[in-house]
Amino acid sequence: MKMGTIYGVGLGPGDPDLMSVRADRLLRNAKHVAYFRKPGRSGQARKIVNGMIPEGAVEFPMEYPVTTEIPVTDPRYNELLAAFYEDCTRHLKALSERGEDVVVLCEGDPFFYGSFMHLYSRLRQDAPVEVVPAITGMSGAWTATGDPITWGDDVLTVLVGTLPEDTLAERMALTDALVVMKIGRNIDKVKRALKTAGLYDRAWIVEYAQMPNQTVTKLSEACEKITPYFSIIVVHGQGRRP
Amino acid sequence: MKMGTIYGVGLGPGDPDLMSVRADRLLRNAKHVAYFRKPGRSGQARKIVNGMIPEGAVEFPMEYPVTTEIPVTDPRYNELLAAFYEDCTRHLKALSERGEDVVVLCEGDPFFYGSFMHLYSRLRQDAPVEVVPAITGMSGAWTATGDPITWGDDVLTVLVGTLPEDTLAERMALTDALVVMKIGRNIDKVKRALKTAGLYDRAWIVEYAQMPNQTVTKLSEACEKITPYFSIIVVHGQGRRP
Repeated sequence: MKMGTIYGVGLGPGDPDLMSVRADRLLRNAKHVAYFRKPGRSGQARKIVNGMIPEGAVEFPMEYPVTTEIPVTDPRYNELLAAFYEDCTRHLKALSERGEDVVVLCEGDPFFYGSFMHLYSRLRQDAPVEVVPAITGMSGAWTATGDPITWGDDVLTVLVGTLPEDTLAERMALTDALVVMKIGRNIDKVKRALKTAGLYDRAWIVEYAQMPNQTVTKLSEACEKITPYFSIIVVHGQGRRP
Repeated sequence: MKMGTIYGVGLGPGDPDLMSVRADRLLRNAKHVAYFRKPGRSGQARKIVNGMIPEGAVEFPMEYPVTTEIPVTDPRYNELLAAFYEDCTRHLKALSERGEDVVVLCEGDPFFYGSFMHLYSRLRQDAPVEVVPAITGMSGAWTATGDPITWGDDVLTVLVGTLPEDTLAERMALTDALVVMKIGRNIDKVKRALKTAGLYDRAWIVEYAQMPNQTVTKLSEACEKITPYFSIIVVHGQGRRP
């Protein structure tokens, strides 16, 4: 029997109109749909495709284990996540062996800091896997600011807020254009690093890029209402422009 | 009379199936289509949308002036390009004032090293302009390699091959994941910089990403046949993966 294909489908920044034609087609014809979510939540990826998935499609929510009490550096953190990814992989592989295609929903672009990568690396030897690239969350964010991110010879650096403050500040000071992802609880550290690097006054924070509740704010004017969990920070390059 | 809207429509890496649903709809309903091309060429952006534009749509090819003899640092280079962009802007603005919508074709993502930015910055005060983000060429390239570009805390740096060799090597040495764009005639310089930074053996070169003639080659095994003009170099991050 022919094995089913597991599609890691990038959904882009969150507007269904910005999904690729291929993603749209795969979703509207899906029989099995898998997605990550936090325990007790409906899941951001699942929300984005509301109304697009055929009635009767079988859904497989993959609920992250609770890790909030364990530091990322503790080996138990990795063990817990690894066991979780193994579980998900087993389920997806079993579907594939029964000849079923599965669409795995991926926010943004699957190969760019995506969770699907952890399934992909475990599945690729044993099952047909295809990845559908997508508009990154950061493209959605810089487009929302209404200003281009890179001109001419500009260097673009993408940093995650989980890095140490001195690393953040050093890398920020060296770049022309900057994107900071995974801000979450690191917002104050990221702000301090931006100030050290002299970029704070040029930084924008985009919340829910390309979604109905999108906000675009100068970071220096952003108040406490900003939810850093769904936000991306953008500093535009100033390169050559004839 | 209501002014027409000028749409800067990102086409993504080159596969029509990877265009956004919005880009697809705008193209299939376009009455005016503008695009950049080199003199005497049909234009890469125009080629990508072959068969998608309605019959009877009015095309406006914007032919770059010949600048091959002038160094980028010569003020005449900028003057020539600026005059060209002004000309294009005048034409697009006149269409908008007649109430016509115009679709401007943009390879990749319009705000990421795109030529449309030079029209956008001149038009935005005087006419309604909308930008449709797209899958970047680099997303197309790293997806083609079959390996994720960034994991965990990886830093991603995007460089252009036009930078000086020592700048390239310095920035390459500091990053976890790397993308090099605008390679063209700079391929040998880029190779030397990768060697200095110790990344040469991990580098891949992707030619015509997501197009029928796509090739994915280890840079160290790439022969002279590679056309660096349509190529992107990718070095994958090695970050945390539970």
